Amino acid sequence: MVDLQLIHQLLTPADTKIVLLVLDGLGGLPIRAGGPTELEAASTPNMDRLVSEGMAGLHQPVGLGIAPGSGPGHIGLFGYDTIRYQIGRGVLEALGVGFDLQAADLAARGNFCTIDSAGRITDRRAGRIATEKAAALCAELREIELPGVEAFVEPVREHRFLFVLRGAELAEGIPDTDPGHVGSPPLAVRAERPEAERTAELVGRFVAEAREALEGHEPANMVLLRGFARRPDWPLFPEVFGLRSVAVAQYPMYRGVGKLVGMATREAGASLDELFSTVEQVWDDYEFAFMHVKGTDKAGEDGDFDLKVAIIEEVDSHIPRLVELGPAVILVTGDHSTPAALRSHSWHPVPFLLWSPSARRDAVQQFGERWCLAGGGGLCRSEDLMPLALAHAGRLAKFGA
Amino acid sequence: MVDLQLIHQLLTPADTKIVLLVLDGLGGLPIRAGGPTELEAASTPNMDRLVSEGMAGLHQPVGLGIAPGSGPGHIGLFGYDTIRYQIGRGVLEALGVGFDLQAADLAARGNFCTIDSAGRITDRRAGRIATEKAAALCAELREIELPGVEAFVEPVREHRFLFVLRGAELAEGIPDTDPGHVGSPPLAVRAERPEAERTAELVGRFVAEAREALEGHEPANMVLLRGFARRPDWPLFPEVFGLRSVAVAQYPMYRGVGKLVGMATREAGASLDELFSTVEQVWDDYEFAFMHVKGTDKAGEDGDFDLKVAIIEEVDSHIPRLVELGPAVILVTGDHSTPAALRSHSWHPVPFLLWSPSARRDAVQQFGERWCLAGGGGLCRSEDLMPLALAHAGRLAKFGA
Repeated sequence: MVDLQLIHQLLTPADTKIVLLVLDGLGGLPIRAGGPTELEAASTPNMDRLVSEGMAGLHQPVGLGIAPGSGPGHIGLFGYDTIRYQIGRGVLEALGVGFDLQAADLAARGNFCTIDSAGRITDRRAGRIATEKAAALCAELREIELPGVEAFVEPVREHRFLFVLRGAELAEGIPDTDPGHVGSPPLAVRAERPEAERTAELVGRFVAEAREALEGHEPANMVLLRGFARRPDWPLFPEVFGLRSVAVAQYPMYRGVGKLVGMATREAGASLDELFSTVEQVWDDYEFAFMHVKGTDKAGEDGDFDLKVAIIEEVDSHIPRLVELGPAVILVTGDHSTPAALRSHSWHPVPFLLWSPSARRDAVQQFGERWCLAGGGGLCRSEDLMPLALAHAGRLAKFGA
Repeated sequence: MVDLQLIHQLLTPADTKIVLLVLDGLGGLPIRAGGPTELEAASTPNMDRLVSEGMAGLHQPVGLGIAPGSGPGHIGLFGYDTIRYQIGRGVLEALGVGFDLQAADLAARGNFCTIDSAGRITDRRAGRIATEKAAALCAELREIELPGVEAFVEPVREHRFLFVLRGAELAEGIPDTDPGHVGSPPLAVRAERPEAERTAELVGRFVAEAREALEGHEPANMVLLRGFARRPDWPLFPEVFGLRSVAVAQYPMYRGVGKLVGMATREAGASLDELFSTVEQVWDDYEFAFMHVKGTDKAGEDGDFDLKVAIIEEVDSHIPRLVELGPAVILVTGDHSTPAALRSHSWHPVPFLLWSPSARRDAVQQFGERWCLAGGGGLCRSEDLMPLALAHAGRLAKFGA
């Protein structure tokens, strides 16, 4: 199978640039039988022009029937095998709040929860306490001192927080303390393997002191920790693909995923205009720009078909600005589907368009799921898109003589 | 995944024959926006009839975005995994000149080059000296005597030659002596692993004596060697697929690739008429005939759209002769795309037609990239075509009970 190493070996220098524009959760479904999807309903004259001149297709994240989270959705688009390269939950939580995770850090996702006088969990989410209340409790937990390591406790939203230990010789191999149901006490902190014993001791001490500190703060009188993970040590995108790369995104999570694979990052401001402006500003310094639009996914999660259509149309209106920059390849797609009809990420294949002077035109004239089905890209894996983009940018040499 | 072993296990005897007609570099691109590809532009009434009665599709060599060389292009069509079964460069060079490589031989690709008085390379291709001049120098190098082994030095074209050592216990594991750039001396011959040490000593001695022999023959006063490889020990095509098989080709390279996987070979003469005549002559002796047409690739490499169209049309005119032979399956395709617009092998999927009485007809009425997109074969891997052909020839039993 084609893998990162093979692609790396085939790299050949070229003075060309690639834009990957991700509309999060782009793929959709009709809300009435026989109706259009969000993308099909949207009026997208600029993307339609690109798809007419280029090629279309659908890509399948992870595998048929698998709805990916934000992590694997993007990791796949970046060309990495999503089963082999998995981001731990703790690390994703850190990326989501823009925490600057260091190589030696150990991160976990935390929940405030409620326990009764016998220590049994009665609410795993502490009544979804207000974010401000959780922030105050996080500040208290930050006071806990542990020998030889630093503890970070960062509020996320409602009952959720990020827990990070920083110090020498911290190890993965700590199982979740969240039993996943009410009625029993939190699971004791333990080490799954010998090298994690010291880490388990430190985490255990934190949990014990947190319980003391939170006493009387019902409903948030205890913590649950899960997804202990360190920042992965993966091949870096700019090195693997030979591209000076930047991630431009409005949300920390997506800059974070880019940063995790070695991309430079730029914050983009709240509006789409600012997103595209930021790319214009950094264009000269990079060969690969990953742009992330969050609104489409959010509208899908909220079940707001019309808003998702409106955001797609607004993105479309900025497309000529990308063309103006003169890239060799423009790739427009999503990291997964988030149909408003389902109000969640889904497993449905994701439409893509690849514009390039070397694209073999297909018959597709409009950007949308049903039309992309007839596209020259067929139904491919998300991981196939990066090699395809590199080829169309003249950056891959022949394989074998 | 379906592999050679699985297919082999499913074989069932049948008195049927398969023809694989490869138009090298068949896939193409338009030379004006919205125009036809070479194949679409060609008038191909006979192939159109076959595709109308049979099925169409596109196959992807190696992986999306990957432009294959002739080796992997054909190895994939023969049903082998192109990443797992890679042909060393030295071996390909031997196939290209029709050298009869033995199992114990070690082959490398050689270049005459120019070095200055300090031994630094000033031209890696010795000014692309004339083939005749290189042939004379090869004859001199053939005089070099090495203890216990025989050395072959065969001219290829211009500065390129084939270097083969024949003898007992020769090992792979000799890195290239070509540093890949001018300004530094050729790399010393060394062994990458202990078992290659004697081989490295012999090659080192050859290089030292070659340098002496070439002294004063500027610009060809030194040699560079790369791609040391032995003939691979692979499962053989006739055994794996249970088919008495013959490779009929005008160029030694393609008979060579067939021979490498155990096919009998027949030289075909220069004209297409001779190619088809040769197949007619050997038809009774074989169950699988691989026919290779070189002209399409050559025209593509030369950027000659019209010539490629003309060759496709000429091939088409001979198609009734294949039908006349009464095969169970006729498969017409290319080993990769060579669009005249790009003047090189490319990564674009390759159109194919499979004619057989058991083909499930699709709506495709004409043989061409855009029409094949709608074909019943979809966008498949090159490796998938052999099992498909075997099935349509009634040569594969049911998998599982």
